[in-house]
Amino acid sequence: MLVNVGTTYELDTPALLVVLNVMERNIERMARRFRAAGVGWRPHTKGLKVPQIAARLLEAGAFGVTCAKVGEAEVMANAGIRDILIANQVVGEQKIARLLSLLPRADVIVAVDSPENVDALDRAARERDVRLRVVVEVNTGMDRAGVEPGEASIELSRYVEQKPGLHYAGLMGWEGHTVKIADPAEKRMAVRKAVGLLTATADDCRAAGLPVEIVSCGGTGTYLITSGLSGVTEVQAGGGILCDVVYREQMQVEHEFAATILATVTSRPTPCRIICDAGKKAMSSDAAVPRPLVEGAVKSVRLSAEHAAIELEEPRSHVADPRPRQVPLTADARLSSSSRGPAAGSRRRRHASVTPASYGRHASHSRRGERHVSVMRASRQPQPPGRASRQRHASVMRASRQPQTAGASVTSASRQRHAGVTAASCKRHADTPFLPSAASRARA
Amino acid sequence: MLVNVGTTYELDTPALLVVLNVMERNIERMARRFRAAGVGWRPHTKGLKVPQIAARLLEAGAFGVTCAKVGEAEVMANAGIRDILIANQVVGEQKIARLLSLLPRADVIVAVDSPENVDALDRAARERDVRLRVVVEVNTGMDRAGVEPGEASIELSRYVEQKPGLHYAGLMGWEGHTVKIADPAEKRMAVRKAVGLLTATADDCRAAGLPVEIVSCGGTGTYLITSGLSGVTEVQAGGGILCDVVYREQMQVEHEFAATILATVTSRPTPCRIICDAGKKAMSSDAAVPRPLVEGAVKSVRLSAEHAAIELEEPRSHVADPRPRQVPLTADARLSSSSRGPAAGSRRRRHASVTPASYGRHASHSRRGERHVSVMRASRQPQPPGRASRQRHASVMRASRQPQTAGASVTSASRQRHAGVTAASCKRHADTPFLPSAASRARA
Repeated sequence: MLVNVGTTYELDTPALLVVLNVMERNIERMARRFRAAGVGWRPHTKGLKVPQIAARLLEAGAFGVTCAKVGEAEVMANAGIRDILIANQVVGEQKIARLLSLLPRADVIVAVDSPENVDALDRAARERDVRLRVVVEVNTGMDRAGVEPGEASIELSRYVEQKPGLHYAGLMGWEGHTVKIADPAEKRMAVRKAVGLLTATADDCRAAGLPVEIVSCGGTGTYLITSGLSGVTEVQAGGGILCDVVYREQMQVEHEFAATILATVTSRPTPCRIICDAGKKAMSSDAAVPRPLVEGAVKSVRLSAEHAAIELEEPRSHVADPRPRQVPLTADARLSSSSRGPAAGSRRRRHASVTPASYGRHASHSRRGERHVSVMRASRQPQPPGRASRQRHASVMRASRQPQTAGASVTSASRQRHAGVTAASCKRHADTPFLPSAASRARA
Repeated sequence: MLVNVGTTYELDTPALLVVLNVMERNIERMARRFRAAGVGWRPHTKGLKVPQIAARLLEAGAFGVTCAKVGEAEVMANAGIRDILIANQVVGEQKIARLLSLLPRADVIVAVDSPENVDALDRAARERDVRLRVVVEVNTGMDRAGVEPGEASIELSRYVEQKPGLHYAGLMGWEGHTVKIADPAEKRMAVRKAVGLLTATADDCRAAGLPVEIVSCGGTGTYLITSGLSGVTEVQAGGGILCDVVYREQMQVEHEFAATILATVTSRPTPCRIICDAGKKAMSSDAAVPRPLVEGAVKSVRLSAEHAAIELEEPRSHVADPRPRQVPLTADARLSSSSRGPAAGSRRRRHASVTPASYGRHASHSRRGERHVSVMRASRQPQPPGRASRQRHASVMRASRQPQTAGASVTSASRQRHAGVTAASCKRHADTPFLPSAASRARA
């Protein structure tokens, strides 16, 4: 659930914050690019997670969303979003049953890369008397999943097309191996080459009489290039609306940081050392070390399970402030790459204007007139109906109030790491509007 | 909630599995050591999370538990565990209020390292008319939190001792900087030196008339040494009952792997490549790359948000099995270190006998007569009362059925990364016994 917050000092920590007007600038930047290029926008929601944010993207020009797995698609479908691409293979009886139960309220698409999986999907769809949209995943050079471009992709496309339970919708690829190429010309060439394999295969499929509607690829690390390539019908870039250290430092994405993790300082053992209450279980540190947005240069950041130990280059004395001191940090909001860059924590802070350091000050965010929203926090009291975020997305919120089994909700929450925005509280919200246990007691 | 499973094929994936008889062997190994050394055992629960497992440790000889934060202590206290040490500083009005609300049902202890924090705890305790146990955290060389050994620690101990809202209980340290020293003699010397600073400070405190009851330190990476050092009253080692790649490869802990993450193979794009549905949001990869327990040597493991791409050294053809193929993986169950070791995935699998590879086979676990338990999975149906895990810990389960606000439950779940065992489903369990939303509907 999204909760509008006044000052950050009302929040228990660690808290994941999204600065709405910064996010809006990132959204507008991306939407403008897709409008100018005349290409469709199907943002990936694996990092942003919250259906209200996805709904905002649909308002801004996206025509659907991309998800990494069935659980994410369920959250989006429950919120009333219809056009959902699951950009991976869905395998196994339980997962396929969950996938198909999204139909017909959502018109979901799934990616395939083997005849065995096509058979299983077709069989299950026919049993339920539904027709499932399918795209063939093409390996355009990242060497993860997908069939090879050219003949292999045409062959699997033909195989899908003749299945009565399936609707062949086209092709999907992801040029993820190009995102970290530093030289702009070299990167452009690599993206062109990879996407060219996909669009050429789409042309071949059409020449073979296959009805290719969708040619989907691209992410935040490539969208400025990919969106301009002919033959691409839609781009999956989504994480850039929040942005993070990895996008900026490793992928040349010049967006602003819209998401930070707010922590409370729990110890100042030396004038150079700050211990705060956000650690490995609040932030990832595999793709990049979280960067504290504190005053002064940071020498190192070490994470333990629930705490970060920040070592400053220069001593900084205690600040006489009776309130607990807070530290905002930026971390990997994408959580989608396993490569390891240089420790971002060792660089000098450059983004104070984006998410100003509130360490040793109070309520600096709200002083600057920025609107904050805290995700991952369930409201403990019914809210007045006039609040901005609820007002704006009232239809989405209403759509999500379908009863669900508690089991599915808890299990889904447990599987998500939480530097990315979690859907846990949103799914919980789907059970009962507010304070379920109190409500249950009252009814009993 | 713990769910006993028959074959692993009943599980939707990714699923975190604990092999109970392997865990029992690890527990017995640790308990034996502490009994032999005549030292107390207060296992850390930041990795194991589940109160039923903590209760099993109390049966096996532990006299209390250690937690990293208030949220974990709440879970343990709600399950009826009384003697709880929070081995970090608790700062801020909200957190201190939550800490004190654990009294008197739990007799919690908290670590302090500054007079300001002591003042805040004392003031809040007096307001509530309770008395909170406090230990002074001593920096024994890890340079995280804590005051320096010797005079500074004695001074802060005196300060605590004269506070009417607090009960001075002693000292705490953590020789975490020694865990990865490879040479056994060198490691022993480093542990002795660090713990010696703590025990000498305890002696000095006693000489100064301070009633030191507790001298607490040690973790799984040091317990074999620390438990034998005089002056130590209790050791905090807990993660070793599950063990993981980091403990074995980087800390010379010769325990068996009791926890694995089960994944379903979603794609076999080449005979050397396996894609399965456990990625960054199911497993950590900062301290060590997860190790797939598959047949054949593994060349590399790359993680995306929801999937792992496993590259084998030698081709391995498809196995003709109509069931979805599964891959168990081991990852960092501790989630407590930020250092980075060599990629464990690149080493040859050595632990097939511990958690046998079920890839391409079915139910190999249960064939070998091993008892499995799946954590992080909420039961979707009421269970028969005779099940082993519920029977054994019936008093714990009953104790945890106190109503809680949904807000606290969801927020706590959202903050935990999930290669460690999560308390999410346990806390959810505390709301209502089974299927809360269905129950609510029935009552309405």
